[in-house]
Amino acid sequence: MKSLQITLPADELPRNWLNLAADLDVPPPLHPATGEPVGPDDLSPLFPMALIEQEVSRQPEIPIPEPVLEKLSRYRATPLVRARGLEEALGTPARIYYKYEGVSPTGSHKANTALAQAWYNAQEGVKRLTTETGAGQWGTALSLAAAQFGLECLVFMVRVSFEQKPYRRIAMQTYGARCVPSPSPDTAAGRAALARDPDTPGSLGIAISEAVEVAASDPDTRYALGSVLNHVLLHQTVIGLEARRQLEIAGERADVVVGCVGGGSNFAGLSFPFLRDRFAGADLRVVAAEPASCPTLTRGVYGYDHGDTAGLTPLMPMHSLGHDFVPPPIHAGGLRYHGAAPLVSHLVERRQVEPVAVDQVEAFEAGRLFARAEGIIPAPESNHAVAAAIREARRAAEEGRERVVLFGLSGHGLVDLAAYDAFLDGQLRRHALEEAVVERARASVRPVRG
Amino acid sequence: MKSLQITLPADELPRNWLNLAADLDVPPPLHPATGEPVGPDDLSPLFPMALIEQEVSRQPEIPIPEPVLEKLSRYRATPLVRARGLEEALGTPARIYYKYEGVSPTGSHKANTALAQAWYNAQEGVKRLTTETGAGQWGTALSLAAAQFGLECLVFMVRVSFEQKPYRRIAMQTYGARCVPSPSPDTAAGRAALARDPDTPGSLGIAISEAVEVAASDPDTRYALGSVLNHVLLHQTVIGLEARRQLEIAGERADVVVGCVGGGSNFAGLSFPFLRDRFAGADLRVVAAEPASCPTLTRGVYGYDHGDTAGLTPLMPMHSLGHDFVPPPIHAGGLRYHGAAPLVSHLVERRQVEPVAVDQVEAFEAGRLFARAEGIIPAPESNHAVAAAIREARRAAEEGRERVVLFGLSGHGLVDLAAYDAFLDGQLRRHALEEAVVERARASVRPVRG
Repeated sequence: MKSLQITLPADELPRNWLNLAADLDVPPPLHPATGEPVGPDDLSPLFPMALIEQEVSRQPEIPIPEPVLEKLSRYRATPLVRARGLEEALGTPARIYYKYEGVSPTGSHKANTALAQAWYNAQEGVKRLTTETGAGQWGTALSLAAAQFGLECLVFMVRVSFEQKPYRRIAMQTYGARCVPSPSPDTAAGRAALARDPDTPGSLGIAISEAVEVAASDPDTRYALGSVLNHVLLHQTVIGLEARRQLEIAGERADVVVGCVGGGSNFAGLSFPFLRDRFAGADLRVVAAEPASCPTLTRGVYGYDHGDTAGLTPLMPMHSLGHDFVPPPIHAGGLRYHGAAPLVSHLVERRQVEPVAVDQVEAFEAGRLFARAEGIIPAPESNHAVAAAIREARRAAEEGRERVVLFGLSGHGLVDLAAYDAFLDGQLRRHALEEAVVERARASVRPVRG
Repeated sequence: MKSLQITLPADELPRNWLNLAADLDVPPPLHPATGEPVGPDDLSPLFPMALIEQEVSRQPEIPIPEPVLEKLSRYRATPLVRARGLEEALGTPARIYYKYEGVSPTGSHKANTALAQAWYNAQEGVKRLTTETGAGQWGTALSLAAAQFGLECLVFMVRVSFEQKPYRRIAMQTYGARCVPSPSPDTAAGRAALARDPDTPGSLGIAISEAVEVAASDPDTRYALGSVLNHVLLHQTVIGLEARRQLEIAGERADVVVGCVGGGSNFAGLSFPFLRDRFAGADLRVVAAEPASCPTLTRGVYGYDHGDTAGLTPLMPMHSLGHDFVPPPIHAGGLRYHGAAPLVSHLVERRQVEPVAVDQVEAFEAGRLFARAEGIIPAPESNHAVAAAIREARRAAEEGRERVVLFGLSGHGLVDLAAYDAFLDGQLRRHALEEAVVERARASVRPVRG
């Protein structure tokens, strides 16, 4: 019996993050007021200097600090698993592997960067972290990391999620974080939103504004972001570095690497090490799976746009559906972002990454098939990667060709089962993007010069 | 940096279960009507012959079938982790390790036996499995295992849980199982219960009766039990076999092994390999942590009692609070059982295992401390083991002595966060057992002869 799980010996845990920004010339973010490239001074009220340096670093590898490595070693390396049950269910000659981040304490990949960010903040004397969270995955991971390094944590959680999805709120409180529904009366941005509409369900845009305001006005508090930025993607590369080595141990070479994209950090974490191999001549494809209802990479416009709804953040060079685009309330809440990480956008623009859009009904059908064949019920976000991997495996079957398909299973769905209930009840709807959204984005997104 | 997680190479996965029954002379179960020892013929309408043979086997080791090994290898070996964060929080000279079963697809140890039971049933041509479930952990694991081996699955879920705790019901349905609230109109036992009280919240006793009735009346259906019986405990010994080897790799020897006990399968799974070492002269203690509100091992009466509330199952030699005892509705639903596995009871009776009772408030305080120090939010059941391990570590600190404490973290609490909400809100109550319960049990439990 050959184990389906490929384990990585503890002494082979990655000791460096892989900085793919060193291989690329991504245009810089611009200050929203001046239109000039953003400098360290613009960012220092929000982030510690070590993370600002990582944001602009051109070093190909960056060492992982020992204390971060130690905390990561509690749940890493995560399993790489041969999906033999899925292969049999599909009748495919493809060999499918998944890299499973659901074994982390919070059940997704988010802890990988939360632990790193919390440590760098603690090193620079920061006392408190603040952030926003939608469904709560990121807020939970940051609360965990803050507890690990003795920091306070204040999370602004979109009010409708705070009220309807209590589980992750409770997890944050168990870790000792303060979790407040946004908009809150604690900030000017929150008070303004409440004045406009006392019954507002809140939005990620308002929650960002609240967290940024708190960080900017309190010298002991810094802001933390769970995706999009270069340093966040950097911290996730442990996923792909482990997977690459585990495949090697299994005697395999990936032909296709598949990840799901919201902001892009999970996708980047898995794929960036393989993309560096591709730049060096490796013959492999990289596929980014996004929701058809929020198809940033497949239908968005490439150019400078704001990262937030209110237009307060720097202008980022990325694919965008327009910073005022409000995606429909699909169940993969972590993929509902109007833009994508500048690094990922740049790779799509350079045709190094193939984006595909997956409807949520196809995604949940894939998730159900995967659950029955492999045992794990995937997170709704991960279902998009499962669906795209199944497409690859089916194509291999049609062509009668062997192929090694690696995909990222970014988390389990045990806290998201209500979404499966809706799916099993036939209540999930397909959402098509209106062309008007793209036209509006085309008008508002600024072109990238050079 | 030394990894906090001790990994086990895939080629060292246990290939045999450890059958501690071979080392002991546990009295046999008795037929409820005749009072004579139960034979294979009595059990064959309910269980496949291979499991009946395991139930009475005197072999010290039993090989794990290859197809079961393969499915187990998706998530096993589970992590053994050095709890350095907890050690620091406690300021103890003890070195604490936990064996973490929460990385399984359903988030607890239950899949270990579910996969084995489903395979043996499939081998003997069974088409459908049926069982009862309270909060849903066991029903979810059996649904997963049935899907893995092409079996149908019918789960009777206690109605009040079916309605109030939808998550695990949805998980079962995602795996393709049929999950019905019990009492149901589908069985005579269910109809009788509904006739008595149409609004009954149901009970585990009624649900057992329904599942047993379906299995006994349909030749294609067998019944599966998630704890208590010898073969179930046997299948869980992979936990302790791995942990023993992982400790060895870490260069450690356990001084104390701690597990939580409901029916006893998780406790047995971790501790039985260490108990065999103890029988061979190893100097170690084994502690069984149970809830103070359902203190079977510390205050129950040792003797023959029924496994179910209705008195239909064989009489088992065990510690019991009386088969009509209804434990208070504490949040660790998996520990609310009036009896304990005959093997575990026998070990307590022979003073090989030290039982301790832990109040649920102490248990959740331990769980919160663990979550902040180690990152994982434990299942409410597991909190009892955490609390007992913390007592051992505190004692080591008082005595100023080194000590290696190993405890079982049987699952994560991500689907049980409502219990943490009640705890954080100060709503959890301490429950003391009334002496009258013990007196009643003393009158009804039959003495073990010989």
